[in-house]
Amino acid sequence: LARAESLVRQMTIEEKVNMIHATSSFTSGGVPRLGIREWVMSDGPHGVRVEHGRDWEADKNVYDSGTYLPVGVCLAATWNPQLGYAFGGVLGSEAAFRGKDVILGPGINIIRSPLNGRNFEYASEDPHLVSKMVVGYIKGVQDQGVAACVKHYALNNQETKRNTVDVQLSERALREIYLPGFKAAVQEAGVHTLMGSYNKVRGQWATQSHYLMNDILKKEWGFKGAVISDWGAVHSTMQALWNGCDVEMGTDLSMLPKPNYGKFFMGDTVVTLVRTGVVPEYLIDDKVKRIVYIMLKTGVIDGKRKAGSYNTKQHQEVARKVAEEGIVLLKNEGGLLPLNAGAIKRIAVIGINADRPQSMGGGSSQVKANYEITPLQGIRKLVGPGVQVTYVPGYTIARGANADAAAIREAAAAAAGADAVIYVGGWTHGYNYSVWADNAYDAEDTDKPDMKLPFGQDTLINAVLKANPRTVVVLMGGGAADLTQWVGDARAIVQAWYPGMEGGNALAGILFGNVNPSGKLPMSFPRTLAEAPAHKLGQYPGGDQVYYNDDIYVGYRYFDTWKVDPQFAFGHGLSYTTFRYSGLKVEGKGKKATVTFTITNSGSRAGAETAQVYVHQQKSALPRPEKELKAFQKVFLKPGESKVVTLNLGEDAFQYYNDAQSKWVLEPGGFDILVGGSSRAIALKGTVNL
Amino acid sequence: LARAESLVRQMTIEEKVNMIHATSSFTSGGVPRLGIREWVMSDGPHGVRVEHGRDWEADKNVYDSGTYLPVGVCLAATWNPQLGYAFGGVLGSEAAFRGKDVILGPGINIIRSPLNGRNFEYASEDPHLVSKMVVGYIKGVQDQGVAACVKHYALNNQETKRNTVDVQLSERALREIYLPGFKAAVQEAGVHTLMGSYNKVRGQWATQSHYLMNDILKKEWGFKGAVISDWGAVHSTMQALWNGCDVEMGTDLSMLPKPNYGKFFMGDTVVTLVRTGVVPEYLIDDKVKRIVYIMLKTGVIDGKRKAGSYNTKQHQEVARKVAEEGIVLLKNEGGLLPLNAGAIKRIAVIGINADRPQSMGGGSSQVKANYEITPLQGIRKLVGPGVQVTYVPGYTIARGANADAAAIREAAAAAAGADAVIYVGGWTHGYNYSVWADNAYDAEDTDKPDMKLPFGQDTLINAVLKANPRTVVVLMGGGAADLTQWVGDARAIVQAWYPGMEGGNALAGILFGNVNPSGKLPMSFPRTLAEAPAHKLGQYPGGDQVYYNDDIYVGYRYFDTWKVDPQFAFGHGLSYTTFRYSGLKVEGKGKKATVTFTITNSGSRAGAETAQVYVHQQKSALPRPEKELKAFQKVFLKPGESKVVTLNLGEDAFQYYNDAQSKWVLEPGGFDILVGGSSRAIALKGTVNL
Repeated sequence: LARAESLVRQMTIEEKVNMIHATSSFTSGGVPRLGIREWVMSDGPHGVRVEHGRDWEADKNVYDSGTYLPVGVCLAATWNPQLGYAFGGVLGSEAAFRGKDVILGPGINIIRSPLNGRNFEYASEDPHLVSKMVVGYIKGVQDQGVAACVKHYALNNQETKRNTVDVQLSERALREIYLPGFKAAVQEAGVHTLMGSYNKVRGQWATQSHYLMNDILKKEWGFKGAVISDWGAVHSTMQALWNGCDVEMGTDLSMLPKPNYGKFFMGDTVVTLVRTGVVPEYLIDDKVKRIVYIMLKTGVIDGKRKAGSYNTKQHQEVARKVAEEGIVLLKNEGGLLPLNAGAIKRIAVIGINADRPQSMGGGSSQVKANYEITPLQGIRKLVGPGVQVTYVPGYTIARGANADAAAIREAAAAAAGADAVIYVGGWTHGYNYSVWADNAYDAEDTDKPDMKLPFGQDTLINAVLKANPRTVVVLMGGGAADLTQWVGDARAIVQAWYPGMEGGNALAGILFGNVNPSGKLPMSFPRTLAEAPAHKLGQYPGGDQVYYNDDIYVGYRYFDTWKVDPQFAFGHGLSYTTFRYSGLKVEGKGKKATVTFTITNSGSRAGAETAQVYVHQQKSALPRPEKELKAFQKVFLKPGESKVVTLNLGEDAFQYYNDAQSKWVLEPGGFDILVGGSSRAIALKGTVNL
Repeated sequence: LARAESLVRQMTIEEKVNMIHATSSFTSGGVPRLGIREWVMSDGPHGVRVEHGRDWEADKNVYDSGTYLPVGVCLAATWNPQLGYAFGGVLGSEAAFRGKDVILGPGINIIRSPLNGRNFEYASEDPHLVSKMVVGYIKGVQDQGVAACVKHYALNNQETKRNTVDVQLSERALREIYLPGFKAAVQEAGVHTLMGSYNKVRGQWATQSHYLMNDILKKEWGFKGAVISDWGAVHSTMQALWNGCDVEMGTDLSMLPKPNYGKFFMGDTVVTLVRTGVVPEYLIDDKVKRIVYIMLKTGVIDGKRKAGSYNTKQHQEVARKVAEEGIVLLKNEGGLLPLNAGAIKRIAVIGINADRPQSMGGGSSQVKANYEITPLQGIRKLVGPGVQVTYVPGYTIARGANADAAAIREAAAAAAGADAVIYVGGWTHGYNYSVWADNAYDAEDTDKPDMKLPFGQDTLINAVLKANPRTVVVLMGGGAADLTQWVGDARAIVQAWYPGMEGGNALAGILFGNVNPSGKLPMSFPRTLAEAPAHKLGQYPGGDQVYYNDDIYVGYRYFDTWKVDPQFAFGHGLSYTTFRYSGLKVEGKGKKATVTFTITNSGSRAGAETAQVYVHQQKSALPRPEKELKAFQKVFLKPGESKVVTLNLGEDAFQYYNDAQSKWVLEPGGFDILVGGSSRAIALKGTVNL
């Protein structure tokens, strides 16, 4: 810090100002005279984005095809913080190899509505799960010497109107639901940079919000790093300067085709403001000091940094592992899965997602993958040439495409004649990935129009299920769809997210039993859109303002408190083996408690179970959700094996934010401790009095 | 508080909601079933406003002519906190007599621009002076059993665009300049209620601002009372409910001519929101509890309250005393004042303010005065029938009125033929006080168009001074005017503000030496509008947003730091005697200091001097103003008498708000202690090292 201050003291005001805004599409300025080069940033959360050079045109003839990791929700579905660290490590290492100083991830906005087009990049509806996963991810990146950039702070929970909407919510919802992930990123992971979001919060642009940036982030949480604006999120010189924004990026997007970086809000005009005494220079010094401090920490200045590596076998292994642990087995009636490869001669693979590469979709998180194993490729490779695999698309991905009778007939015929049918459908990022922003469903800057599966898939799936009831339905995408038209008829359903470059191998492994699934849903799947709490109690997408009247009742906090059955519950995920919970002991000590219980693999395959600990306060001054996740552990067990799990619940596990008193409170009394395999599969119940 | 909670528990949701909004123009709802009557409020800061009944029509045939006290800036100009207490006592007593539970004052917004039409109701440009004066005022009111209502929180520093403008300012300016008065009102005076202002602050309506109301007022400062909206300042049900507004008033103004109190933002709709689970009932409970708590404290419930009194001699004495100590002698070359009544035969009194009652002007602060002694009446009474007093208006108060040659000739002729000439002009509240909102200069909902004296007074004054150089110029109004056209020629200038019902007697007493003036300016008088810091460095009135780029450099903090000479300096005010400062001792103890010095009345008349202690930090990490007022004392001395003054400077006297660190800091080092009779008349200088 002293070295950072010393460097700042040597700079002219022009040099300082050059450091607080962009100098090209993905760089901010340096001071060559003092050995400070430009700061180089790159999207995005699940791989290093294609190269743009200094403008917005993708470069040609450049080695930018790298490791394409599974998307954020898939990582969260592993419920395995160690995989978060491994995932971050891959990202950091490849970013370093590609010469990036800052990698723009993780994205951790709370999944509030199933419609949000960017949910796939995020993690969960639950702040505890977000917090645990984000810490590993960030440490993984930063241990490679590259700065992570947690985003989008804050309340960017929808893409519709993201550039204008003003989010209004209670302080309790802000504190209990929307901020904990960011707080953990700052205080537990020590994240170096943070990205301000596009939307407004309580009337002020989030990136220029005194409350969010100065009061909470920098003062309350003690953030020492730099706040980077989302690309084009700065709207006012004075607000950005005073209210905690350190680096302005992306404003050139609104200046195209003739960007002028000096004309950024935090550009040349700032020099004049300081010179005329309107703005004190120390305000600029503070920003520059933060940037230089992170540059020093990450070897941009005085630099020794690990070189990083690219497209290694180990990186690909991590991508595969995350997919294997993140894909969720939602339903498996009568043990339809796993399929027995040895007993199958003809497989029908139906649905476009079976053979569609996904890596270049979704917007800024796009990755040019070194390779991408699609589900069809994975299945073919696993079963080998001895098994006949027939692929039928069944539907078309195009704007306005509906169910097509001929395509459906072809699919049904293939299904009827097959020993095994694997349907691979669900959402898609966009229509045509070669067209930037040809957005559709899981994509930046757009939300899903509704929760219905697109392109007539409900009709298709019904026809296929009728033709062959043993059809396995695999859904890709960033989250829930309305499955009500056929969910009762489908015996096996798998949620595969966008599982990355090794996704096809991982999925095939699960379908054929080489891999025992262990993913758990990081968000509730409501039956219908109308039953999603943001839509039932709250507002979406709102007008100029959107009121989060669903308040703290996001996800299972709503379903469990209001006694509404979701389609699939938060934390739900099946295995090919079974687990038994037993021997719960809960011991209170002061304001903390220790929870001990045993999990036994009571089936015949090795497998992993994520045991979840929920807390329910018996009586509280203010209403609380029926239960809240406060601890979890993923346990790997051989058949018949038992393990004792011990989890500590700190004071924060029992507190809630009392917004009539404006503080966190721990009210003495009884707390039920609920342990089980999902929010709706509570196996053990104990009580502690604090 | 337990009793308040018990009462709230007995209420239905409809009864609760009825308590959080207006039920007529100046009442909010009660719960008759539980012995809780309506809550009765009244304007305003310097007298109990005329009666309106339940609508907006002034009542006829009602005894509502009461004590009309000098306006806020006049009280502040006394620099006498004990008079603040007496002033508040009169107000509280008359409010109680008139059956009011809450009196809507004091108004303490910082005087930022000389143009603000409501400056006359406020106090000062300096947060320390505001804080000291407001505490006495509030305690005075509340010791009479009536709730004070400090206003307008916050940053309502202009009337132009007051309903739309969004104030953007640094946290340092907010903390150092604009909030201290409110903090003192809450923490030192224990004010029972607070009024939210019309404007926006950092994007959110002040009255519905989470940051201002919940974070700062209720959490940081621990305010236990009720937040009342300014009349019509609530714009959103959800924001008002969540962000700390407790009582919604005045929305009926936008519903006229058919007000429906159930349709207020915090009306019937709230019942539905609570019933459907969108808003938790505890949020309403908290508001009702605050109201009931104050009702219990002020005897509205279970009530025993002093009856109060009305139009007593003692009340009128307080009005006179405040005027006598608040009127400021700005200039007195060659001892032109005091006039010698015994040696004068013919007096010319020139200027409309000499005979214009002011009590019914200015907007909501209007008072129907039991009587009002105008300057002309005061002068005539004092000099008696043996002296010929000629009154010449000299100009006309009317929209667009300019200098009138005939009127000026008449005035000059009267001046030329008189032994003494007293010009009484300056500002006026409005054009025609019998027309509501016929606003002009010192009035609610309007700002002055510029700083030039209206109605051609500059021409008139020049002519009168030419006809008789011994003319005394008396200026009324809420603050500075541009005097540059004649200030060098006028030998005596008196700032009389709007001095209340006894103002004419007080002014006459000062002019003829029966009273020795002791008022001191509570704000700097800039020479021209262009030199006022809000206009020089900052923005006024701004667009949708107004940036306070003048930052902490408000008033003398600007003039003294930028080395610009004001017309008359902050703290300036002459006496008919002279004072000598001597024997300064400054002793540091830890983070505090004690300042001791002697004041001697070195002249031949009894008089009072307000000694001012300013602090200057020799070296600070961030720039600080040249000096800042941190203590003062008004000392009454007989001729030749000396008194030792001891003032304690706490830690806060040396701190400043470091907005790069988001906290108050006390940086060790040397601090100069400057003692004198104004910010520009420093008589003694010492140093302390902390």
